[in-house]
Amino acid sequence: MRYFEDIVIGDTATFGRYEVTREEVLEFAGKYDPQPFHLSDEAAAQTHFGKIAASGWHTCAMTMSMIVAHMKENPQAGLGAAGLDELRWLKPVYPGDVLRAEMLILDKRASVRRPGIGSLQTQTTTYNQHDEPVLRFISGTLIRCRPTD
Amino acid sequence: MRYFEDIVIGDTATFGRYEVTREEVLEFAGKYDPQPFHLSDEAAAQTHFGKIAASGWHTCAMTMSMIVAHMKENPQAGLGAAGLDELRWLKPVYPGDVLRAEMLILDKRASVRRPGIGSLQTQTTTYNQHDEPVLRFISGTLIRCRPTD
Repeated sequence: MRYFEDIVIGDTATFGRYEVTREEVLEFAGKYDPQPFHLSDEAAAQTHFGKIAASGWHTCAMTMSMIVAHMKENPQAGLGAAGLDELRWLKPVYPGDVLRAEMLILDKRASVRRPGIGSLQTQTTTYNQHDEPVLRFISGTLIRCRPTD
Repeated sequence: MRYFEDIVIGDTATFGRYEVTREEVLEFAGKYDPQPFHLSDEAAAQTHFGKIAASGWHTCAMTMSMIVAHMKENPQAGLGAAGLDELRWLKPVYPGDVLRAEMLILDKRASVRRPGIGSLQTQTTTYNQHDEPVLRFISGTLIRCRPTD
């Protein structure tokens, strides 16, 4: 188990492989983001997407699934995320794309008010199979310090 | 159709109704965010959630579905979102909760480089049935100006 003390600013982890299927793009968009360019190639051809593209929220969800799988293999004493900053959808994600993710530790701070807890600032970037970044965001998460007793 | 010129800074739209079901919370988390506190009441009882809670990304997705439904009823010449800032998960969302959303126009600017296009900055807040904010984020979107010919 990795605790606050084990986290090194500047460290990068690379992980994940997520095959984006047309079926899943349509299912997610149909339920949560039914804009025409996420549901039909004809409608998408009229936009800068050119062809059917995944909902940006779906790209976030696929990225989260890679993060959770990575954390299961590399357990951390995490206490959840409070929020995100500077989230940018950098390129469209298309059916057939294969995604992977990179997580960079930007900063860590021990809590002054809550002894035993630290906060991490991490930057997550999702890439497609052409090594193009498609999504990037900064997240603030809490993590426990190593037990002292 | 509402164009850039029709958007008024400070305007607020209130919309949506989304019933959060246990089945959907489990389905989304199982696929995209399989952390124990999103999948089991026993695991959630050991955390600050207390009982099974929706993935934060699921709350985003449910909010997006309310936004898209609202935009279908109130069409805008929108050109999509580039990103989000200051996203905060403010309270847990539980099965049985009923969500609604509010969107506030924070700012609008005509593009200097791209005539005919404007950008909007909006703040979206999702509330539960107790009128507690559960999610808030700022988004930057593009919108067409009214055709002049």
